[in-house]
Amino acid sequence: MHIGQDYLINLYMEAVESFLRDALTQAGDRGSSRLHEMLAFHMGWHSKSVKETRGKRIRPLLTLLTCSTAGGDWKRALPAAAAVEMVHNFSLIHDDIQDHSPLRRGRPTVWKKWGIAQAINAGDAMFTLAHIQTLRLEKTVSPIAAIWATEVLQNACLHLTQGQYMDLEFEKRDDVTIEDYWAMIEGKTAALISASVELGAITASCDNHTRKAYREFGRLFGLAYQVQDDILGIWGDTEMTGKSSQSDLLSKKKTLPILFCLSKKGEFAYRWNGGRFSIEQLPGLLELLEREGGKEWALARSVELVDEAIKALDAISPVNEAGQVLRNLTLNLAHRRV
Amino acid sequence: MHIGQDYLINLYMEAVESFLRDALTQAGDRGSSRLHEMLAFHMGWHSKSVKETRGKRIRPLLTLLTCSTAGGDWKRALPAAAAVEMVHNFSLIHDDIQDHSPLRRGRPTVWKKWGIAQAINAGDAMFTLAHIQTLRLEKTVSPIAAIWATEVLQNACLHLTQGQYMDLEFEKRDDVTIEDYWAMIEGKTAALISASVELGAITASCDNHTRKAYREFGRLFGLAYQVQDDILGIWGDTEMTGKSSQSDLLSKKKTLPILFCLSKKGEFAYRWNGGRFSIEQLPGLLELLEREGGKEWALARSVELVDEAIKALDAISPVNEAGQVLRNLTLNLAHRRV
Repeated sequence: MHIGQDYLINLYMEAVESFLRDALTQAGDRGSSRLHEMLAFHMGWHSKSVKETRGKRIRPLLTLLTCSTAGGDWKRALPAAAAVEMVHNFSLIHDDIQDHSPLRRGRPTVWKKWGIAQAINAGDAMFTLAHIQTLRLEKTVSPIAAIWATEVLQNACLHLTQGQYMDLEFEKRDDVTIEDYWAMIEGKTAALISASVELGAITASCDNHTRKAYREFGRLFGLAYQVQDDILGIWGDTEMTGKSSQSDLLSKKKTLPILFCLSKKGEFAYRWNGGRFSIEQLPGLLELLEREGGKEWALARSVELVDEAIKALDAISPVNEAGQVLRNLTLNLAHRRV
Repeated sequence: MHIGQDYLINLYMEAVESFLRDALTQAGDRGSSRLHEMLAFHMGWHSKSVKETRGKRIRPLLTLLTCSTAGGDWKRALPAAAAVEMVHNFSLIHDDIQDHSPLRRGRPTVWKKWGIAQAINAGDAMFTLAHIQTLRLEKTVSPIAAIWATEVLQNACLHLTQGQYMDLEFEKRDDVTIEDYWAMIEGKTAALISASVELGAITASCDNHTRKAYREFGRLFGLAYQVQDDILGIWGDTEMTGKSSQSDLLSKKKTLPILFCLSKKGEFAYRWNGGRFSIEQLPGLLELLEREGGKEWALARSVELVDEAIKALDAISPVNEAGQVLRNLTLNLAHRRV
């Protein structure tokens, strides 16, 4: 991307970060400063934090870019952008408890630092604050935009919990199909990313038809994003992702490349179904996974989804620099490294 | 209460139950029927359930009674009534995980039956569904009522998580004061009960002054309710409350009668600070708690709060049968047995 586009991204990112910081201070009201501390720590704002440990903030960026390319004033969309990032982070705080993850972005997770009980509650506080933000659109955009945005966000949250229910259930099942996988990531990933884009369209006061088109673009973006995440979870560069490479393989997470090879019922499936494996067995499994086409097939799905997303976006004819950034972000999904 | 009042309560209760059942089915959409099953089980709707295991539904009752006595159509307030009951139940599902409680109302808790990970998620789904309900007031009352109601509910939820943060922290602290206690129950109990009443006023399109008066009445009702709950937690009738009597004492919960006696720094405080106690020591502790005035003092606070609540209510001059029921419910708080 050229310099103007980088400038735009930085401008939006800084505005989001500053809005988020302000909005989250409310958690510390009424003598609950330590509750605020938990949320701030999770967001990567503790004293020693560096920008890289804060997460990508891709969802709020999508909201602001969409608002801008759809002809709206991105500054008015800031409450919506903050809301989607907060929902994402609420789900991360609860996810980390559910997955027993001790680390996120190189730092201890909230439950590891403050215990499970306080971490559940911290997630609940973050969730509440998210919804308080969309209501603020009443002042920055209009009362009806506030209602629509809150409605879209709530429905995405319900879909998110349905996807999470499936994901948790997958861990216990031996018969997860590729079809089950698509249904799961529709909820777990695509619902909130789709809502992030739709909220941008709502804050730009788009008509129903355009709003629906953006929603579909966001959905395809979200699906591509998750497939890419699955690929990075196995073949990603540790330094870039911040996660240990092949960790998804060790934890036996049923991601897309795995499910593809399991469906082939070959040597990989045989070894996978044999129980837990040690670190020493990983190279052999990785080789099988590639040889039996898991990586290639998942990459092809990712490219396909990116193509569909680009088609959906081009059909809306996005304008200006923000539209260009949105297009480039989508294209980059097919070869994102972090 | 005479027969007309019982009739009204039953009418409202059945309408709420039916609305809740309908609204919660949404959790089972998109192939998540087992997620719905978890919520339905928690609500007491499994096949073998009897009405008594369902909880008192006091919060939605307050919403409908307030709406009616404030001149509104209680049927239009049903989404708001369902919302407050759902928020209450979301907090119970998460509470039970945080407190490691294996039983609620004589049945296994959600985490005990489906594991901690799924229970966290089930609570999140219930929370989301709650907020979806207040938005439905857009159709039954007006768009602005929907925004106000959602705003009031969200703020109560934030206050709830702040109260919960304090309550969890109290477990680890040896220096909790009576003042800390009041701040904690303002969030943990009074915020949602106050919002339940205020939502009734909003759905009746009350002016700001009246709405504020109802909010304050609800706050006092909530405080009295919690103090009474503390008393029942130690001296309550097991058969009526469904909890084992003195369980709060055994778990060393810092409730109001306890905090009063701890502040006296007498024999009770000495024994309490000596560490855990066995079942055999309970009768002696109970006697000390009464002798040192813990029960009497807490009862006096409860009566005081009920008086204040009645004054606040009478100042609004509630009319009709609903107003009478509201008044009687408040008076009954001072000697409620369940």
